[in-house]
Amino acid sequence: MTAINNQHLSSFLDQLKYNEAGLIPAIAQQHDTGEMLMMAWMNRASIEETLQTGCVCYWSRSRQAFWRKGESSGQVQLLKELRFDCDLDTILLLVDQTGAACHTGRRHCFFYKVEHDQVIVDSEPLIDPQTLYQHSPVNP
Amino acid sequence: MTAINNQHLSSFLDQLKYNEAGLIPAIAQQHDTGEMLMMAWMNRASIEETLQTGCVCYWSRSRQAFWRKGESSGQVQLLKELRFDCDLDTILLLVDQTGAACHTGRRHCFFYKVEHDQVIVDSEPLIDPQTLYQHSPVNP
Repeated sequence: MTAINNQHLSSFLDQLKYNEAGLIPAIAQQHDTGEMLMMAWMNRASIEETLQTGCVCYWSRSRQAFWRKGESSGQVQLLKELRFDCDLDTILLLVDQTGAACHTGRRHCFFYKVEHDQVIVDSEPLIDPQTLYQHSPVNP
Repeated sequence: MTAINNQHLSSFLDQLKYNEAGLIPAIAQQHDTGEMLMMAWMNRASIEETLQTGCVCYWSRSRQAFWRKGESSGQVQLLKELRFDCDLDTILLLVDQTGAACHTGRRHCFFYKVEHDQVIVDSEPLIDPQTLYQHSPVNP
């Protein structure tokens, strides 16, 4: 397979393989530590907003609306780098995460770990989620 | 939100939010460097096989079959740790990747990088994909 050569961003976004709802999965990773933070979904408009503002904006499937990460909780994700994969169907966001990425108040969302025939929780919240969302109980 | 307490693996797998095709996205990360390698899809049977064998097995949406990573290319992923996220709709695989994770022969799949209004390719193949798949041109 030959990779697509350098392209204008706009025509590259045209070629992404959005799903039937116009969405594409986006993985957020802390840029300096490599820590995996979360996975959510973006549409073309949220990708464009994220690149324009430098603050990560997902698309909320439950609310069917832009989900400007940290808008209600203050736990924003500043964009450091945005990448696409070989198949043009996944986004990697390298970010600087303020505080907790997870709506449970934990630093990251991947806190369920398989150990033998059990699934355990191996991290604790940094902050009580009720404190995070006391003013506006929508998205993290 | 209260996290689910320790649970038996089998009942936890019952609760995962598989999509309408019975699939759930799985992110693979190199366990010791934090490098993001790829994203693919798993069903319940491929999760179970991965945990049993210690070798990552995805579900190929194009072939509608198990995709035992590295079966044809030799570029296997040994499982170090398997995690689920807070919403039970994403898997994180911490793996030890042999050689190239990407079917283009690159170490990882996220080689398209946004730079200003361009998308550039910023890594080269480790190995020619025609060499990788000369005996069995199916999946990486």
